[in-house]
Amino acid sequence: MSNAVNEFNEYRSKMNEKILNDNNKIIKRIFNLDTNAYAAGVLDIKTKELLGLVASTVLRCDDCIKYHLETCYKQKLSKAEIMEALSIATLVGGTIVVPHLRRAYEYWEELEKA
Amino acid sequence: MSNAVNEFNEYRSKMNEKILNDNNKIIKRIFNLDTNAYAAGVLDIKTKELLGLVASTVLRCDDCIKYHLETCYKQKLSKAEIMEALSIATLVGGTIVVPHLRRAYEYWEELEKA
Amino acid sequence: MSNAVNEFNEYRSKMNEKILNDNNKIIKRIFNLDTNAYAAGVLDIKTKELLGLVASTVLRCDDCIKYHLETCYKQKLSKAEIMEALSIATLVGGTIVVPHLRRAYEYWEELEKA
Amino acid sequence: MSNAVNEFNEYRSKMNEKILNDNNKIIKRIFNLDTNAYAAGVLDIKTKELLGLVASTVLRCDDCIKYHLETCYKQKLSKAEIMEALSIATLVGGTIVVPHLRRAYEYWEELEKA
Amino acid sequence: MSNAVNEFNEYRSKMNEKILNDNNKIIKRIFNLDTNAYAAGVLDIKTKELLGLVASTVLRCDDCIKYHLETCYKQKLSKAEIMEALSIATLVGGTIVVPHLRRAYEYWEELEKA
Amino acid sequence: MSNAVNEFNEYRSKMNEKILNDNNKIIKRIFNLDTNAYAAGVLDIKTKELLGLVASTVLRCDDCIKYHLETCYKQKLSKAEIMEALSIATLVGGTIVVPHLRRAYEYWEELEKA
Repeated sequence: MSNAVNEFNEYRSKMNEKILNDNNKIIKRIFNLDTNAYAAGVLDIKTKELLGLVASTVLRCDDCIKYHLETCYKQKLSKAEIMEALSIATLVGGTIVVPHLRRAYEYWEELEKA
Repeated sequence: MSNAVNEFNEYRSKMNEKILNDNNKIIKRIFNLDTNAYAAGVLDIKTKELLGLVASTVLRCDDCIKYHLETCYKQKLSKAEIMEALSIATLVGGTIVVPHLRRAYEYWEELEKA
Repeated sequence: MSNAVNEFNEYRSKMNEKILNDNNKIIKRIFNLDTNAYAAGVLDIKTKELLGLVASTVLRCDDCIKYHLETCYKQKLSKAEIMEALSIATLVGGTIVVPHLRRAYEYWEELEKA
Repeated sequence: MSNAVNEFNEYRSKMNEKILNDNNKIIKRIFNLDTNAYAAGVLDIKTKELLGLVASTVLRCDDCIKYHLETCYKQKLSKAEIMEALSIATLVGGTIVVPHLRRAYEYWEELEKA
Repeated sequence: MSNAVNEFNEYRSKMNEKILNDNNKIIKRIFNLDTNAYAAGVLDIKTKELLGLVASTVLRCDDCIKYHLETCYKQKLSKAEIMEALSIATLVGGTIVVPHLRRAYEYWEELEKA
Repeated sequence: MSNAVNEFNEYRSKMNEKILNDNNKIIKRIFNLDTNAYAAGVLDIKTKELLGLVASTVLRCDDCIKYHLETCYKQKLSKAEIMEALSIATLVGGTIVVPHLRRAYEYWEELEKA
């Protein structure tokens, strides 16, 4: 995997583990819900991951965007599908979203390098 | 159509018309993009409408939620699909989203009454 | 109870019940967490309610503010304590918070009328 | 003055007075800063009011928008100037701003009726 | 003190000094209010610092979180109290807060190393 | 030009080019609008750039702030004018804006070094 993807995932895993070991019940349950919410239901996983990506993008959270980009990538969503989802996010969220779009685009390239 | 749906659409149409007649070029183009962005592309219209709904929900814009709920309704998305999309929005956006979830739920009922 | 308080609580209860009966697992768990998070722990209930109030205020969610104002009121927090918490919220969140401060102040008066 | 303008101003004045009489030092100083910040400096009042309007619009605060629209109106800013400022706000803030744009447009008409 | 804490404080102090020397009256007063708002009043300093921490967390401002974490640390708030406050922030603000929670957790460890 | 300014502009240009070459119609049009919206109209370019700067600051987007600071600098806006605009942004957006104010101040110094 590319360096950027690796570093992001390692930091994320390391800190999640520490936080979960800290045993705050509310936080543990939120982490747990985060896994369940994107499982297949009446909506399929691909659609749900795109929903997570767009929510993360309009709320301008780079780490959340990276996380969902990787899951989208693993779900075999195409770059064209990602870009169409991100175009809606940019329109709804405004030009303030554009710097996050640049970093999202760059991260997707990192994922493709793997 | 129910009263609430009617009133929302009438106000929206009336004001959009006034704004468009005002002829500000930037605003007109943004309105125009808003129509194009949700047309079928590599993603189908249903998926795009769900993306618009979730973006509107995490950004907590009641009018935007209503607009996308109606388009989702016309696209024959089921209540279960809407609720699954809204559950992701509530998880990503937090309990601060819940008051908008209540109003969204109520508006969906109005759409079903039609 | 005053009319404004009554109406708010009735609408909130009615819609929460409908949403819970809809049986979306993620949403039900978030509602459940919302109850647990404000229970006494290493922080007492009063402190937690003030945290909920300030979080709601800087995120500018009128309904969330109303809800926490009522819980604060029931916990016998004084108006001076509420105002001090709201002053921090206004400073951190900026003058954009002021319209919500007005409505919060008005709602507190409604709670006191009861 | 039109009813909508009147009602907004009366509620605003009434609640501001109550809040100021409550004597929370931090809040009083923020209210005081709010008056000073828009006084003529190296930037003239018109420019400052447009800055306040655009800040209020991208942060989607209807009451703040109304307040600045009225001050802009009193400063003899033209509708075309207002619309150009609002077009920048809509582009930067995205289509999520559009419902606030509708209400801003309507309120400007109320101000012109006076 | 740990490197991360040191660097943050040095940059913060250096830039605050430059900005204050620039003599913009509004900004100077806001900086001044920021000191006063967290002084003991009807609420004690610990509670106020937790309010500042939660406000900063739901608004997802890493630097503000770091600043309040350090003040909380100096006020002898325990890690368990911090985590309980942050759990409320994560529930209210949603999973979008989680990346900031990771960095907050890491920064608290830096503070403990000192 | 200073290193920080250079690096920012190079990354921005490189990624914008990649994104535009990707040929998503919605995104291309938003990029295009972004150029048009700040052209002289009934408001002059200086005023529009200040509007863009304040919108970016209250929405707390560092990259957007940098971009508008550079355009303001090229338009010969003075540091005093910038600081007055930023003081309004800090008042409206609250102390949560202060970390962005620090970075804005630093970037303006970089622009002056050129």
